[in-house]
Amino acid sequence: MKKVKPISGFPEWLPQQKLIEDAYIARIKTVYESYSFTPIETSAVEPIEVLAEQGVTDKEIYGLRRLQDEDESIESRLGLHFDLTIPFSRYVAQNLDKLKFPFRRYQLQKVWRGERPQKGRFREFYQFDADLVARDELPLCCDAEIIGMMNRAFRSLMIGPYTISINNRKCVLGYLQTLGIAESLFKDVLIVVDKLHKIGRDKTLVELGLEGVSDLQANKLLDWCSVKLNAVDFLSSKQDEMVSGLEQIGLKELREMLSLVPEDALGNIIVDPSLVRGLDYYTGLIFEVTLPEHPNYGSVGGGGRYENLVSRFSNQSLPGVGGSIGLTRLMDLILSANLHASIFPKCLPQLMITVLSEEQRSQCNKVAERARKYGIPTEVFYKSTRLGKQIEYASDRNIPFVVFLDEDGQKIEIKDMKLKSQTEVPNFDEWCRHLAGTLCT
Amino acid sequence: MKKVKPISGFPEWLPQQKLIEDAYIARIKTVYESYSFTPIETSAVEPIEVLAEQGVTDKEIYGLRRLQDEDESIESRLGLHFDLTIPFSRYVAQNLDKLKFPFRRYQLQKVWRGERPQKGRFREFYQFDADLVARDELPLCCDAEIIGMMNRAFRSLMIGPYTISINNRKCVLGYLQTLGIAESLFKDVLIVVDKLHKIGRDKTLVELGLEGVSDLQANKLLDWCSVKLNAVDFLSSKQDEMVSGLEQIGLKELREMLSLVPEDALGNIIVDPSLVRGLDYYTGLIFEVTLPEHPNYGSVGGGGRYENLVSRFSNQSLPGVGGSIGLTRLMDLILSANLHASIFPKCLPQLMITVLSEEQRSQCNKVAERARKYGIPTEVFYKSTRLGKQIEYASDRNIPFVVFLDEDGQKIEIKDMKLKSQTEVPNFDEWCRHLAGTLCT
Repeated sequence: MKKVKPISGFPEWLPQQKLIEDAYIARIKTVYESYSFTPIETSAVEPIEVLAEQGVTDKEIYGLRRLQDEDESIESRLGLHFDLTIPFSRYVAQNLDKLKFPFRRYQLQKVWRGERPQKGRFREFYQFDADLVARDELPLCCDAEIIGMMNRAFRSLMIGPYTISINNRKCVLGYLQTLGIAESLFKDVLIVVDKLHKIGRDKTLVELGLEGVSDLQANKLLDWCSVKLNAVDFLSSKQDEMVSGLEQIGLKELREMLSLVPEDALGNIIVDPSLVRGLDYYTGLIFEVTLPEHPNYGSVGGGGRYENLVSRFSNQSLPGVGGSIGLTRLMDLILSANLHASIFPKCLPQLMITVLSEEQRSQCNKVAERARKYGIPTEVFYKSTRLGKQIEYASDRNIPFVVFLDEDGQKIEIKDMKLKSQTEVPNFDEWCRHLAGTLCT
Repeated sequence: MKKVKPISGFPEWLPQQKLIEDAYIARIKTVYESYSFTPIETSAVEPIEVLAEQGVTDKEIYGLRRLQDEDESIESRLGLHFDLTIPFSRYVAQNLDKLKFPFRRYQLQKVWRGERPQKGRFREFYQFDADLVARDELPLCCDAEIIGMMNRAFRSLMIGPYTISINNRKCVLGYLQTLGIAESLFKDVLIVVDKLHKIGRDKTLVELGLEGVSDLQANKLLDWCSVKLNAVDFLSSKQDEMVSGLEQIGLKELREMLSLVPEDALGNIIVDPSLVRGLDYYTGLIFEVTLPEHPNYGSVGGGGRYENLVSRFSNQSLPGVGGSIGLTRLMDLILSANLHASIFPKCLPQLMITVLSEEQRSQCNKVAERARKYGIPTEVFYKSTRLGKQIEYASDRNIPFVVFLDEDGQKIEIKDMKLKSQTEVPNFDEWCRHLAGTLCT
């Protein structure tokens, strides 16, 4: 006998938890579909050189090896994907002549990262992405559509308040130019700024110094980063008129985009200059979704605009914008903080048929078949043990209704387990039709 | 720019094909749920020693390695699962005190096998499993439930006739005993018999000879294997009274099980003594589903009873029985043979709002929001290019209805793209409510 232990970083849910996850998935899917997004799925693996181009060295990739293979020539070039954006870009480039543009797609798949597992950070987890890619030109209304849709998706989860922090890469790059910081330092400076909210101002100043940023520059930069405005205030401010260059372009883009976001979303949006996001394929809008009542959980969603990602695999210009919901992290939080009050997962099972004797089983099966025709999840007890034991099982599994047949299978009685009442049901089909009408889907 | 090519054995569908796959998934899920099965999902990886115990050496396992890791101590012990039965067994053993028994679960996940890709055989593919596990004792009615449910699942797909070939491991083992073949040869003999339908009788006789089986024994065995009966004939035959020992036990089990299978399933079932199935964790019933009109595709489903699989990970006795549908192989066949006439995938998208000018876009967004409230998949065209181009796109994407707003956004006209008629819609909400009622889900 092999003693099995859970593998750290690879979470698994119990059946009742999986039902809750499925219910949240259905809500997000409904929102994505209401915006006309269609599903795709890509293979779990990609050639390493597709995954590991510039800007992804901060993700730990799981490579594959065939255990029975001496010649590792093929599989050693494959790795598990660590996000869905890069596989999506590769898929678009590969199917360029078969897709219609603008192409809206959603994608729910697991991704893998060989990082050290922590609270809310896993090695295997679901991402639920939606992206919009166009040929040549992608107007800012597409950024607004993604932000509006993400707002709608998080609202549909009903797990309390959420904040969508937004920024534009051009703003911070523009301000670094204004400060006179050398372009060669930009990447490392952004990596430090990205840690600001984790390590605090003092440590960030020290680290910026180590990167070659002067004290004055570093202080100015962090002051600039600290000015956060909610979207409504941002729209009524004249920030973009007071600056110039790339920073101004970024602010103007944010303004134009926000003017197209539905009004009910604006209250959840904060413009946060310190928002950086690690992956450097983003070129304009970036955003992150957090839950203010659960600050320790970090972001549960994010995304942005990428001008050149698909272009990596195609000689055509295909800018894109998209967002991702960190479903597994969200589920971990929802389950541990008991946030799923609004979820009534598909009520499974509904009906159990008791079995008096093995001779009666075929009769019981036929009654079950009748109920299933109405879509009622039904099981026949697997043994003809004493009725008390059968009812106990139904009670343990929260099965609301239990059926009893008399010995010749003509008379049907049904026990309502909640009301503890048992009555004869002369018209079983009618009873089933009625129950089916009350089932949540 | 990196030129990307598909990876052999890792199939991907186009969006319209993925919608069809989703529709088939929904049908199978509906059947599994109607039998009170609940979903679980296990991690994609297992410790190698969980995957690679006895009887699984015929599957090629993909091991993991962390690219950035010098110390491969942890990840080198992990591999991608190659089926869902072993992970399920491990999951049951691990959550023994949190599950209710008999435990019915379904599980739809990808599995990976490093085999040479062929027509209908992939390296990454979906399996859609349903298993039933009990404590200590699992009556034969559970085997009948699985066969009945698989029959229902394949019927729900509406892709033409299917055959469920069944056998009982005890029959062939018993007959090998009767023939006086040494027990030490059983495993190798079964491996040869398993290839019978592929390599033909003559080659099989030769190979049996090489394994040390006498000519007489080999001929008797293959004669015995060739007697296939449909389930109705099997039930009216007295086969089990003419034999003894383990073979008789196997035949009696098949008879008892078939007597509990719904009548409408019997016509699809054939008792086939030559059916072996490679994996040797099966101990009683084994079955395979094939499509007689597509003989080259091999089996599209299968399963059986395993007395000791969960027991590998727990000191308790937990016999199980289950089946698996090879969804990806099935989809490959359905798509290439155009069998999906009965599928009307969720009609996505439904409505497109044209945009006269960027000033009008916010108005258009609001109209879209109204339609989405009724669950209508709606998109707003992403540019305010000339209307002809916008309508062309809607036509390309098969969007059935296109909305036009007048300049101040008060008047709504809708073009029915199929009828090519355009009319003013004074009450847009009423129109949406009507459309929503006609949408397939």
